[in-house]
Amino acid sequence: MSRLPAVPGAPGVVPGAELLVGARLVVAPELSASLVRELERISGRGAEPWGGAVADGRGPLLCVGAALPEALRATDRLLWFHSVNAGTDPLLAAGPWPANALLTRTVGRMGERIAQYVLGWVLAECQAVPEHAAQHARAEWRRLPSELVAGQTALVYGAGRIGGAVAGLLRACGVRTVGVGRTVRTGPPPPGFDRVIGAEKDAEELAGARWVVAALPSTGATEGFFGARRFAAVRGATFVNVGRGATVDLGALEGALRGGGVRRAVLDVLAEEPAAPGDPVWRLPRTVITSHSAGITADEDVAQDFAACWEAVQEGRRPELAVDVERGY
Amino acid sequence: MSRLPAVPGAPGVVPGAELLVGARLVVAPELSASLVRELERISGRGAEPWGGAVADGRGPLLCVGAALPEALRATDRLLWFHSVNAGTDPLLAAGPWPANALLTRTVGRMGERIAQYVLGWVLAECQAVPEHAAQHARAEWRRLPSELVAGQTALVYGAGRIGGAVAGLLRACGVRTVGVGRTVRTGPPPPGFDRVIGAEKDAEELAGARWVVAALPSTGATEGFFGARRFAAVRGATFVNVGRGATVDLGALEGALRGGGVRRAVLDVLAEEPAAPGDPVWRLPRTVITSHSAGITADEDVAQDFAACWEAVQEGRRPELAVDVERGY
Repeated sequence: MSRLPAVPGAPGVVPGAELLVGARLVVAPELSASLVRELERISGRGAEPWGGAVADGRGPLLCVGAALPEALRATDRLLWFHSVNAGTDPLLAAGPWPANALLTRTVGRMGERIAQYVLGWVLAECQAVPEHAAQHARAEWRRLPSELVAGQTALVYGAGRIGGAVAGLLRACGVRTVGVGRTVRTGPPPPGFDRVIGAEKDAEELAGARWVVAALPSTGATEGFFGARRFAAVRGATFVNVGRGATVDLGALEGALRGGGVRRAVLDVLAEEPAAPGDPVWRLPRTVITSHSAGITADEDVAQDFAACWEAVQEGRRPELAVDVERGY
Repeated sequence: MSRLPAVPGAPGVVPGAELLVGARLVVAPELSASLVRELERISGRGAEPWGGAVADGRGPLLCVGAALPEALRATDRLLWFHSVNAGTDPLLAAGPWPANALLTRTVGRMGERIAQYVLGWVLAECQAVPEHAAQHARAEWRRLPSELVAGQTALVYGAGRIGGAVAGLLRACGVRTVGVGRTVRTGPPPPGFDRVIGAEKDAEELAGARWVVAALPSTGATEGFFGARRFAAVRGATFVNVGRGATVDLGALEGALRGGGVRRAVLDVLAEEPAAPGDPVWRLPRTVITSHSAGITADEDVAQDFAACWEAVQEGRRPELAVDVERGY
């Protein structure tokens, strides 16, 4: 946690606690009443609804919600926006981020939630959960083999908080975990990982992996990251995407599924959501799409992470959950 | 591991290594050729098939298989029987065990296998795996809530090796684990458990549990153990049986499922296996039956555990995997 000077006006930096004193707390209409009460308690002020506060032209504003009202994008009234989501790419993609405005996000127990999602689908495959359910529906008694994950390798793209949580839980089942980061690191691997490699050196590990888990954010640099070259290196792994749909070239994935290089796919996210009933993505072989259900943030996550950010700003620190609006995460 | 005197003839005790020198290795027909080769290597003698060795009346015999040939039950030719399974109740139920014969069993990585089975079904429920699969089949995009298991309580009946492995893995996901043993213990709980209680004091924990996992052997004392009284104490837990079917009173379970006290049931084992297609057990509400697929032992498990027993006998120790034929496990 680096201590940055509290200079209002410097890009991506922290508003001075003194500026925050007079800021109005503005909350999006989708927030529950109990969450709003929590935010009021933490910030020590009453909340105002979106519409009026945006229209009346006064500031400074501290907003909590999912999407930035367009009217605020080009003004300097926005001091701080706290996102109720972890992924802030839709916020940043919708237009230029207002200069000088702090952007923080909610991660909450998302790492833990996504880790349980990944392990749930990994074990469902190993334990033949869908096949057993189908046999049961036919009243058919037939012993099915299961697969022990211990000793298998999982390649986890994204060696940050979420990737680390996924790796840590897989490791508890005896899986060897290899993280893939965009930059090569030195020193011991971060918690959860047996080792971490750079993305440009992943071919060998892709060939040996039983599981390839994508947990990458969507940025210009990650678009189509999982393309023909990477999928061609896969030898029988199941591909699980809990990051962002735009990181996957679906045509390349389809080719690898049809060719057999990719064993199965579990896609929580797609580049275009929701998928329409006629979308060909539903017909990918051996694939399940789970409607962006992994790691949904709960009210308690938002309140907890907002409180942590609030405390940091009060102390003149840059919150750990601040988003670098240039990098996009 | 207690060091017992190597007295041939004392019930349930260890044959002297000197008796074993001349013993014939007899293998069941269902054993694979590669497993038989391993057993030959470990014991340093050639293997003979079941039929001839049983018929010719000579001994002493060291048998490896699943079921004891009836002709050996009433003789004193059987020195040692190594079971390829963990559950030896069918062996013991089929008739009196030959006096003086050592019975050992294969546990292998069964604890790990069963633990992954249990966690797989727990997470499948929390992550709505069957519901997502059904939505996918309908090409329906609909976000489904998931359940985080952290902070929930699992009550695990059987606080031995298998129960402990189940508890340890659930605990890695943040689950509070309470073991239920037949005898109250003192001192710190065994690995994997937050606490261990006696079976007569389980009502309160049953009411607070989200998961009730049965991992009990089948003995006279455990028949119908999960009956009306226990199921009546359950308040919304899912019941998972990886032990033995005879420990469950299916009528009582059905009542609790219909009444809503038991949320769901996952039954790997039944008192009568296999269940015929017309068996009413297939129509229990919110239940999946998995055809005794959890924790199947593999050849490598048999070879490894046989080798450990062999080494113990050579050293005059009672193998850790020896079965107390009176208690039944």
